[in-house]
Amino acid sequence: MVDFIGVSRVRELLARRGTARFIEELAAEIEADFLRWDTFEKSPRHATHSSVGVIELMPASDGRLYAFKYVNGHPQNTQAGLLTVTAFGVLADVQTGYPLLLSELTLTTALRTAATSALAAQRMARRDSRVMALIGNGAQAEFQTIAFHHLLGIRELRLYDTDPAATDKLERNLAALDLPHLDVVRCASTAAAVAGADIVTTATADKRNATILTPEMIAPGMHLNAVGGDCPGKTELHRDILLRGDVRVVVEYEPQSRVEGEIQQLDPGYAVTELAAVLAGRAAGRAQPREVTVFDSVGFALEDFSALRYLRRLHQQERGAHAQIDLLPELADPKDLFGLLAAQPHTLRRTAGEAA
Amino acid sequence: MVDFIGVSRVRELLARRGTARFIEELAAEIEADFLRWDTFEKSPRHATHSSVGVIELMPASDGRLYAFKYVNGHPQNTQAGLLTVTAFGVLADVQTGYPLLLSELTLTTALRTAATSALAAQRMARRDSRVMALIGNGAQAEFQTIAFHHLLGIRELRLYDTDPAATDKLERNLAALDLPHLDVVRCASTAAAVAGADIVTTATADKRNATILTPEMIAPGMHLNAVGGDCPGKTELHRDILLRGDVRVVVEYEPQSRVEGEIQQLDPGYAVTELAAVLAGRAAGRAQPREVTVFDSVGFALEDFSALRYLRRLHQQERGAHAQIDLLPELADPKDLFGLLAAQPHTLRRTAGEAA
Repeated sequence: MVDFIGVSRVRELLARRGTARFIEELAAEIEADFLRWDTFEKSPRHATHSSVGVIELMPASDGRLYAFKYVNGHPQNTQAGLLTVTAFGVLADVQTGYPLLLSELTLTTALRTAATSALAAQRMARRDSRVMALIGNGAQAEFQTIAFHHLLGIRELRLYDTDPAATDKLERNLAALDLPHLDVVRCASTAAAVAGADIVTTATADKRNATILTPEMIAPGMHLNAVGGDCPGKTELHRDILLRGDVRVVVEYEPQSRVEGEIQQLDPGYAVTELAAVLAGRAAGRAQPREVTVFDSVGFALEDFSALRYLRRLHQQERGAHAQIDLLPELADPKDLFGLLAAQPHTLRRTAGEAA
Repeated sequence: MVDFIGVSRVRELLARRGTARFIEELAAEIEADFLRWDTFEKSPRHATHSSVGVIELMPASDGRLYAFKYVNGHPQNTQAGLLTVTAFGVLADVQTGYPLLLSELTLTTALRTAATSALAAQRMARRDSRVMALIGNGAQAEFQTIAFHHLLGIRELRLYDTDPAATDKLERNLAALDLPHLDVVRCASTAAAVAGADIVTTATADKRNATILTPEMIAPGMHLNAVGGDCPGKTELHRDILLRGDVRVVVEYEPQSRVEGEIQQLDPGYAVTELAAVLAGRAAGRAQPREVTVFDSVGFALEDFSALRYLRRLHQQERGAHAQIDLLPELADPKDLFGLLAAQPHTLRRTAGEAA
């Protein structure tokens, strides 16, 4: 039997833990794994593109555990009442190849993305950052807000989305959260939201080269947390922002980001720093206060590896519905797979008759 | 909700259908998909190797449906009472990226491997083939036997395995099947089993270059169904067999087979034919009776695609436990992923407190 964490179970685990604490603990797990970067077998994800979206498989292994995530990206799904991004994943034992856990990862992807964004921003944003612009107020927005409020001390959030209903939804959810130390300001445009911000988070979903941020919006000292651009042809930043003399770009895993990140717009020789080097202190996330820093995030399999391991521990620790599914046969004799069918003599006799 | 076919459900479906009929119908599905080979997006599988085995992801898509299989190969697992190969897979809708079905594929992989072997042999073995040697009597053996008895008219089966207990198990299972037109002969060696056979099926599992069949065992007119060699360093045939002047080698998907198949032992320029061309009649599976034909099978994602689609149809048609799992969130507003948590005010208030 394989452990199963469905949507109802992950909601239960989040309720027990609290969303902010969940994100904080998950960020610590992700950081610990990035600190042993070289122990992982890494590869760019496998993507299957269609005219309307992409389906990706993201594997990672540290030689003891293996994880993969299935994730789709379909920007037009919301028009049909469906999610843009859904995901699930599996954690397996490298020694036997047996799956240990199957889990929903739609909610969890939003949580791990926010955790990774906060982890990068802790090293890259100015320490006195208090104002964040949030461009794109869809499914990721609340998670990014909680992460940056809780882990970076953001006190003012400036909102903009081309879809006013998305901003309505975000305002409503944030009001219900009742965060006494967070001011939420609705803005009339991206430029208005970005003006005066210390951190700019972009989490938009168009699958075409979009230009959410243009050079004149960017002020010295800003940190850009570019979450939405994450596949070929899907970008959010005007390339001239990346070509500023004072810019520093951090990516998760360079071979994947060259294809999927904002830097897909640039020459392959353009210099970037990997997040693992920043977290390990081998490279600076920010060298001086007036630098513009960019976390060109696309999402890497290692983050899902960390998330699945963390979920498995919570699932086993916390009371509640500890579901399992019969994804694997259990056999007295492992060479006797066919024996599984032997309890069904009628069938086999019928088979014999047919074969005669 | 996503349809779920666990081990108990696939046993139920097999019991209803009968194993031979299941394999025959599955072979027809696989053939139909190979006949529209060019409509598929194909790629070699993604493999993560360790010292004890391999974990692979095998995706395929026809632009309407997307499928992938997770499968491991761990030859030493049987020593710990575990299966050498386990698998599961998912069928998804390309238009939305949403998963439709999660299914066990351990039993199903054995069934689809047998179906594909039989499909190839129907075009490659001599029509008067009646005697099959089966080298390797483990988890695949009964499925190969049923497929070749039912679909090719094999009347005599000659068994050999280095592990006598595996042959005991196979003999016991075949006796219980009570196939009146199949004679089963236990042999003392591979050479003894192969002598006089029309078809030789090798289904061994060592993860190292093994030499199960050597040149002097091979007689003109034989068809070799090489099932066990399926990853780098895992082969079953002496390379000189492949270098005979009268040999014809058919593979499933050339880019993958160059890495994983028996032909990994040979120069990349060595000529092979793809199964799709043989099934479509564009290439001969066998040109003359005295040729030696080799189906250098490694298992291709397309076969699992066909199997998942076939299983889904059976699952929906047949009565019985039609299980579903909550792998995906269902939202009134797809941009309001966070709304899933809103039913839990205590948590969120606690989160807010922590964040303050």
